[in-house]
Amino acid sequence: MKNTIDVCFSPAMLPLYDYKGAVVVVIDVLRATSSMCIAFENGVRSIVPVATLEESMAYRAKGFLVGAERKGEKVDGFDLGNSPFSFMGDMVKGRDIALTTTNGTQAIKAAEGAAVIAVGSFLNLDALCQWLLKQNKNVVLLCSGWKNAFNLEDTLLAGAVCEQLHDFFGYTDHRDAAIAAKSLYQIAKNDLLGFLEHSSHRHRLAKLQIEEDVQFCLTLNQTTAVPVLMGEALVRA
Amino acid sequence: MKNTIDVCFSPAMLPLYDYKGAVVVVIDVLRATSSMCIAFENGVRSIVPVATLEESMAYRAKGFLVGAERKGEKVDGFDLGNSPFSFMGDMVKGRDIALTTTNGTQAIKAAEGAAVIAVGSFLNLDALCQWLLKQNKNVVLLCSGWKNAFNLEDTLLAGAVCEQLHDFFGYTDHRDAAIAAKSLYQIAKNDLLGFLEHSSHRHRLAKLQIEEDVQFCLTLNQTTAVPVLMGEALVRA
Repeated sequence: MKNTIDVCFSPAMLPLYDYKGAVVVVIDVLRATSSMCIAFENGVRSIVPVATLEESMAYRAKGFLVGAERKGEKVDGFDLGNSPFSFMGDMVKGRDIALTTTNGTQAIKAAEGAAVIAVGSFLNLDALCQWLLKQNKNVVLLCSGWKNAFNLEDTLLAGAVCEQLHDFFGYTDHRDAAIAAKSLYQIAKNDLLGFLEHSSHRHRLAKLQIEEDVQFCLTLNQTTAVPVLMGEALVRA
Repeated sequence: MKNTIDVCFSPAMLPLYDYKGAVVVVIDVLRATSSMCIAFENGVRSIVPVATLEESMAYRAKGFLVGAERKGEKVDGFDLGNSPFSFMGDMVKGRDIALTTTNGTQAIKAAEGAAVIAVGSFLNLDALCQWLLKQNKNVVLLCSGWKNAFNLEDTLLAGAVCEQLHDFFGYTDHRDAAIAAKSLYQIAKNDLLGFLEHSSHRHRLAKLQIEEDVQFCLTLNQTTAVPVLMGEALVRA
């Protein structure tokens, strides 16, 4: 009996899925989970995802770097925003980080109750797939979306994982979402940036002039780090 | 300023959309909204969508034909199930019908509050698109899905409508769902049946041996009827 792999397009739909004994992979390509993956590549020790600005700031007194993004921008007074480039370099090496973002950290909260919560992005695609194969559990790929709405870039990453793993997993009744994600990735994969040209998040982010962030987040395999939640903190698996 | 067109993948996500002043098109390709469209082609006078078996049966005393589908099958004691072929011929001509189905009639209930509620399927695709162009309102294409989960065949029909209308409408923040639906339709349109070969609903229905229903429901433009809700009943627009 094969383990199953499913795709869930929104944290709001996760209650429809049987994820309690499963690995839930939280995906927020632009940009929370991309930033988390590259943070561990750069020697970050742990990341605590929190829901509110106040919770994040409270960690400063414990010696954490504190991060917060709202409406796509770093919140004033915090050390870090949501750009992957801010999670690189000597400033973050060996540090613990508390982070709140609009969608990604909220999706991690929504996945509470899963057997294991991991974090995926294009930056760790191959490492993530290899790690998933070793877990011997059902997998739910949870797209963070945008405020619970369907989101294209998260769907493409879910599709990329399904493409790599579909020979090794079965599907449940939620196979339609997996088929859709995989089909979309197969159209888009030779030009992810071009395919996302008209997407809503690209429009949102275009106003913020963070083209470099977007291009970087759509780059495959920049790290072998697979962040997983241990207690309240993400650590490198 | 163009009107907008959006795709909503599940009745559970409809509250995220600004649909109160919009035309909501309810889509349940396999098979509720296909059956409704072909019913009007065959001279049915009205169809009252109801939530429960009891409500449907209660209409018999008023001279209605009563229809009910659960788990893909006609419920014992009712006149009609959910097969489009049961909504054809002399038996239905000129009649009023009360109908409850697992997903389609529930999605119509979920759309309450829309300016206009209409019903779409591949069977009335071109007529639906022409009618939508005349409404001068925003449009939300609501996929009924399967018990609130994402569903492939409803998404394909939403994508077919977007393909026809995208020059005439703008997109909102929900454009990602429209882009996904249209892209999937463009891969699938030359062989809808083949593309749906591995879909969940095809698996469900395969057990019921209703291949003919499925093939018929994936046939384009078998009627010019556009059912719209007037009061509690669907009538031909």
